[in-house]
This record gives sequence, structure tokens and C-alpha cells, in this order.
Amino acid sequence: MATDATDAAEAGQQQVTLAITSDDVRAAADRLRGVAHRTPVMHALSLDAEAGAQVWLKCEQFQRAGAFKFRGAYNKIANLSEEERQRGVIAFSSGNHAQAVALCGRLFAIPTVICMPTDAPSVKVEATAGYGAEIVQYDRMTQDREALARQIAEERGLTLVPPYNDALIMAGAGTAALELLEEQPDLDVIAAPVGGGGLISGTSVIAHATRAGIHVVGVETEAANHAYLSKHRDERVTIDPPDTIADGIRTVALGQLTWPVVRESVDDVILVSDDEVKATMRFLLMRLKIVAEPTGAVAVAAARTGKLNRFGRRIGVIISGGNVAPETLCAILAEG
Amino acid sequence: MATDATDAAEAGQQQVTLAITSDDVRAAADRLRGVAHRTPVMHALSLDAEAGAQVWLKCEQFQRAGAFKFRGAYNKIANLSEEERQRGVIAFSSGNHAQAVALCGRLFAIPTVICMPTDAPSVKVEATAGYGAEIVQYDRMTQDREALARQIAEERGLTLVPPYNDALIMAGAGTAALELLEEQPDLDVIAAPVGGGGLISGTSVIAHATRAGIHVVGVETEAANHAYLSKHRDERVTIDPPDTIADGIRTVALGQLTWPVVRESVDDVILVSDDEVKATMRFLLMRLKIVAEPTGAVAVAAARTGKLNRFGRRIGVIISGGNVAPETLCAILAEG
Repeated sequence: MATDATDAAEAGQQQVTLAITSDDVRAAADRLRGVAHRTPVMHALSLDAEAGAQVWLKCEQFQRAGAFKFRGAYNKIANLSEEERQRGVIAFSSGNHAQAVALCGRLFAIPTVICMPTDAPSVKVEATAGYGAEIVQYDRMTQDREALARQIAEERGLTLVPPYNDALIMAGAGTAALELLEEQPDLDVIAAPVGGGGLISGTSVIAHATRAGIHVVGVETEAANHAYLSKHRDERVTIDPPDTIADGIRTVALGQLTWPVVRESVDDVILVSDDEVKATMRFLLMRLKIVAEPTGAVAVAAARTGKLNRFGRRIGVIISGGNVAPETLCAILAEG
Repeated sequence: MATDATDAAEAGQQQVTLAITSDDVRAAADRLRGVAHRTPVMHALSLDAEAGAQVWLKCEQFQRAGAFKFRGAYNKIANLSEEERQRGVIAFSSGNHAQAVALCGRLFAIPTVICMPTDAPSVKVEATAGYGAEIVQYDRMTQDREALARQIAEERGLTLVPPYNDALIMAGAGTAALELLEEQPDLDVIAAPVGGGGLISGTSVIAHATRAGIHVVGVETEAANHAYLSKHRDERVTIDPPDTIADGIRTVALGQLTWPVVRESVDDVILVSDDEVKATMRFLLMRLKIVAEPTGAVAVAAARTGKLNRFGRRIGVIISGGNVAPETLCAILAEG
């Protein structure tokens, strides 16, 4: 929030320069125009009734490659010099970021390497390979994926596309909230899930620049609570690898670039339970007819259980993605 | 098709007057404005690749009460005199029509009775009762639901809202295609599932009036092939109750009003298998992140398997609804 930064400055403290500004998000939006899907914003009275508020869902599960990750990956790769780009890109991820980078690699027709763990679900390996990326597998127990990726990058002259701790990735992620606010300008609050903090960072910077007084709230599951702890202790906390159904946010800490944004600009971080996430996935499937992956349902769960109402009753929520294995979907449906 | 009618007239045959005109569909659209959802039209390169064509999906599973049925039911009830409406309405259905009429009854705050079989899935009974309708149960084996509904209607002065064989219901159903053509005016073909024929009738009348040379194709499953047989034999055929996964089109014949429209205006009726429907439901869930009920996937299956390509490569498809039991969804996911 601008207020915090001003207070800090007035108190004689050093003013923090955040990794991105709203101009970076707007520049990313220009780059993504006609390339990323402008995903629909959905509204349903049945959800409003459960939430006790008006809720608008920004549906990034309908984004290319099934998640908001495409926005950042494309923004990053489009910003490389032509020479860098032609040498190729590399990413490490077993999830949505892998598919997003692989799709971008195909769109730019450049060499693309994705480092995935040997025990990654075959459906995700196949989807990533299906975009034409080269898959390099590593053993999660014995190999450091980041070191491996950096080594391959150096050997082959590839550019590493990080999953969140990068200004262009953060700015790209913020374009979803920009579109949401273009359609629903008078929101009181925007909520998004928090993993490494890329999505919530971009969201917060653009939302506060676009609408004075808006609240931006990050949502984690109870086990994956590093941003919650960081925010409340005012220091970047690292947790043990969390056990949560929300596989997209099994992160242990915010990034060096995303933490200052969460500290300065995000209003609060709150928690939902895995059971609330599962019940919300069922609600989204059965009532709204949409598929959200567990992480995609995290912020919706916060809205649906009324946990966002103290920030206002006009609530925007980002559904971050929809890539979920059929077995997981079945298991969650069967619990209802 | 206008051509057929002209040819018939020129040949000295009696010209058929159809139950609805495109003006009726436009009037319905005016009535539905701000009441029905203007559902999104979705497009995905992954579907195009499978179809070998460009495919746009008109997503009526996102319509109020989860199916296109709301359009016809609301158009019908909004057209009653104030006195008729206040006396109330009655419908017989165990499916989407029941929920649509029940929701309309709540919106108009009028007495609403739905006759449902004693063996209707409890989830559907609950959803219908949840809108505040009175449920009258009947035994499918021993009672004639239409006779029962007419008897109750007479006793209580209620107006019967039929599921398809009614000009206002047909015209209301046509508004989905009108919206689709407003967003994608240059389609070569529009396909929709055929049960009683209300949706395909409204679709065909408005599509031919809006775009010269467009093809309108009805789609049935192999077992539920009464419209296919009727079209190809040029007589209204009644079949035995069909065994198909597509529970929304387990109809035995077209209606007295819908058959002439199918005969004169619909270009063709084609068939897909239950397996193609199930595979398409999985594709819609896993790739497009949307829930379609089996009937909702019927016309998508036709597009996806290339069966519509002979009519052109710019294909509009109506997903009729998304109301499906979680067990069914699971069973279909598990088969993949």
C-alpha cells in the first residue's frame, strides 16, 4: 500500500523499491494482447449466496496451457533479445510453469528444455513433451533441480525462465488482475493464491495502482503457510515442504523479489483448509460447471467461506489454473 | 431452408407454416435480456486440432439452472397474462426443464408444481425443490405423467409449461444460436443435440434467417435416433425408449410442432456413439476445464470426430447443459 511506503519514508526509514511497478504490468498486457486469452470473468448467484457477498471469478483455468503461468512466461521470453531467444530457454517445474514455458517455446519456435522430476505424473510429462519441449529428468532426492537447470543453461547458452522470482514473470502474472479490474472496476478486494508469490505480487501492484483503497489478500492452505507466517512475523519465513492438496503452492518460501512486494503492498494473507478447498472444487464442478485445480480453488474457498467479507462485499477472485489429474478430480467428487 | 419451401411452393405443393419465425426468436431475446445469462462462446486450439476445423462452443452449461432450458421456460412464463401467471405453472420433467421452470417460478414468485418420477435422482429432486417448487411424484411404470400434470393443472388452474412442443419454448431455445451468431457471424454450420426438437428448431429458424447458406445439423446418439430416422424417412418416427448415456435426449419422437421445423429447416441429423460422447466429456473436462453433461457433449462429439466437416470448417456447437451427477462424472473420468 502506498500509505505504508509513505509512512516508512516519513519515519526516516529507507524506502523500499519493489521489483515491479504498475507500468511493468501494463507493458506486459500490451505484449500479451492477442497472444494470451482474455479469460472470462464469471459470476453466479449461487456462489454469492454461499459467500454472503458478490464474487467475480477471473477464470485463468481457461488461459492457454490451463493456468495464469502463460502470462509471465510469455512476457519473459518476449523480452529476450532475438539472439538470446534463438539460443533457447530452460525451466524447472513439474507443473503449470513447465507447460506454460513449453507452449511459449513452441509459439516462438525456439529450443526449450524443461527439467522435471523422475516421479512427475506422466500426464504432466506428456503434456509438456506434447508442446515439443525437451524433457530432462532428475531425481528429486539426490539432485538440485535449480543447479541442474543452471548447469544445462550454461552449457547450451539457454536463458532460465524462473517460475516466480523475476520482475517480468511477476508483471505478466499481474495482467490477470488488470483485466479483472477492467471488467469490474469497483471491487473492494481481490484475492489470489500464494505459492512463490509471483501472482499475488503482480496482482497487488496493479490493483493498488488502479483502484484506491482496494484490499489485496493472498490465500494459502493451512499447511503451506509460509507467506502467512512471513506477513505476520514481518520476515521472510521458510517452512518445511508442505503436505497440502494444493500442489501448485507447495512452495517453502516467497522469493527475494516477491517477499518485499508481499510485505509492502499485499494487505493480508489468510488461510483455508484442504477440506474447504476440496468442497469448493466440488461446488465449482457441480454448480458452476468449471474445473479448477486445487490451487485454483484456494482463493475461491476463502470467498465462499466468508473469510474475505471483512475486506468488503465486492470480491474478485483469481482462479489460478485448472490442470488436475482425473484421479484427483474423481477422489474429490467421491468425498462429497 | 428457404430454398426447400420455395421449391415446394413452385411445385404446387402446400407450403408448410412452421410454428415459429425468426421474429419470435428475436422477441424472446428481448424478453430474456438481463434475465438469462449471455453465456460465453469458447474456442480452443486443442479442439480445433482434433476436429480439423475451427470450432466455437456456445456454453449453455453456464446458463441459469445449468442448461439452455431456462431460455424457453422464461419466455413461456413471461408471455402468460398476469392473471394466468399468478395462478401458477406446472411441468413434468426429471431433468433440466424441471429446474428451469422451478427457477422461473421463483423469479416470478408464483406457485410452481413439478411432476417427477419417484425414481428421479435425489440430487435433481433436491435441486428442483431448492428453487421452491412443489414436487409431485409419480410412478413411471403405472402413471402417465402428462395426464397427471394435465389433471393437476386443471384442478388448480395452473398453466402447463411443456418441455419442447410449444412455440414460445422453441423460440426461447433459439436465442442461444442468435447470441452465438452475433459473436461468430460467419459460421458454416451450427450443430445442436436433438431430443424433443425444441433446441434444434429454434436454432435452425434463427440461423437460416440470420446467415444465408448456413447448415444446421442436429446430433443424436446412435440409440436415440428418432430424429435421424424421421429426417431420413421423411416421416415422424417414434422409437422405443432409448438406452443412451445422453439422458437429456432419451425422447422417443419429435413433437407435433418441432417435427415440421426439423423436416423443413434442419439440414441434416447425424449420429455419434455413446463412447464418443464420453471421450468428449473427458476432453472437455481435462483440456477445456468445463463440465458438460452427456447430452451437452453430443454435438461437440460430432465436431471433434470430424463428422461436421462436410458442412464446412467454421463450426458452431451448442453445449446444451452441464447438469450431471458426480458419480456419472467419475465413472466417465475413470474410463479414460
